Amino acid sequence: MKALALLGGPQMQWPQNIEDTFKTARKDKNLIFSSDRGTLILKQWGITPDVAVGDFDSIKKNEKKRTLDGIADVRFSNPIKDYTDSEQLFLAALQDYQVDTLEVYGATGGRIDHLLVNLFTFLHLPLRNYLKKVSLIDKQNLISFCSKGVTKFPYRTEYSYIGFGNITTIESFNIKHARYELKNFSSEIPQMFSSNEFLPSKKAIEISIKRGIAIAVYSRDVNRFFK
Amino acid sequence: MKALALLGGPQMQWPQNIEDTFKTARKDKNLIFSSDRGTLILKQWGITPDVAVGDFDSIKKNEKKRTLDGIADVRFSNPIKDYTDSEQLFLAALQDYQVDTLEVYGATGGRIDHLLVNLFTFLHLPLRNYLKKVSLIDKQNLISFCSKGVTKFPYRTEYSYIGFGNITTIESFNIKHARYELKNFSSEIPQMFSSNEFLPSKKAIEISIKRGIAIAVYSRDVNRFFK
Repeated sequence: MKALALLGGPQMQWPQNIEDTFKTARKDKNLIFSSDRGTLILKQWGITPDVAVGDFDSIKKNEKKRTLDGIADVRFSNPIKDYTDSEQLFLAALQDYQVDTLEVYGATGGRIDHLLVNLFTFLHLPLRNYLKKVSLIDKQNLISFCSKGVTKFPYRTEYSYIGFGNITTIESFNIKHARYELKNFSSEIPQMFSSNEFLPSKKAIEISIKRGIAIAVYSRDVNRFFK
Repeated sequence: MKALALLGGPQMQWPQNIEDTFKTARKDKNLIFSSDRGTLILKQWGITPDVAVGDFDSIKKNEKKRTLDGIADVRFSNPIKDYTDSEQLFLAALQDYQVDTLEVYGATGGRIDHLLVNLFTFLHLPLRNYLKKVSLIDKQNLISFCSKGVTKFPYRTEYSYIGFGNITTIESFNIKHARYELKNFSSEIPQMFSSNEFLPSKKAIEISIKRGIAIAVYSRDVNRFFK
């Protein structure tokens, strides 16, 4: 089962076609999760999420009933805040609903502490068990994770670059079939190798890791300077 | 000697008063560094940086001479790319010019691989030696680093939140005089503790670390959802 999630990060960082993406997902009967103001915006698009997480305090009282109306599974924020709303949402999707893939929108942009919370949360148990199923998507980036073993990254026409980096201690990190290869790299310190590119053959880039976690960032420039 | 640097990240992420900030810095005879299109934009503001780094290929040929005119120290990009332009700029400021503090603008927003390169570069030698002197500033965030020893973070009226996190293996990480304290935390895995806040007394928050590197992110919400 495929799933999409909409968090409350700044809308100016969302992909331009995001409304269509969620409408198509609804039509295809994918599961839809939301947290924070993401729920309100889905409703404005005429989409009722399957699962909503949040304290919903930012929504005016008279809008609250209407916003939550029809949502089968509403989960109120963990009051002792063992988990953030985003983490509760990720756990619901990956652990409770056992989705096969989870595309997360609205996790980036604005506050950098929020971005780092959303990136680093997948390094810790229990979410660490599911990290290969997750991608974080915004206007310019698609981020995914890889751990022990071999992971293939296919060429994607929408992105010009791909960067890889270890975000934990890493042992024997290899990048194959890319413009810049990496062989048997080990380090205790996070490092981002950017920008890498696909070969002219557009063959999938192959990452292998003996121990540790790396991220892959597909990216593109979007009127970088004057927007 | 205080220094400011302007990199080429997306302008929509720059602080609103950035032009005034650089004009004041010029008046106060602070050193000014730029890379990439940052140089062109400083010139448009009537400011000639002291040091400019880049290949300047993105600037039209007839603008190139005018852009570089009057800059005392122009450094062309390292052709074998041992260092990115940003790293070359950081090295120039911190190692060659031995500045006491370096405020970096234009290092965030847009491509997340670029952000992570700019964050992680300070975990590695030789820049690691200077990490306490550096802050990365954008419209919503001020990021700084701390390593072994005690570091104090003063209350700043412009920001509502502060988050701390270890971005390397950390040993005995402590947060004192904050809403959420942390005692003797050790971990091999990066983790962001967010959002923390100052106490009502507005006393400086005190971080101490036995081994490893942490970041501090002062942040604020800016019309988060509808911009």
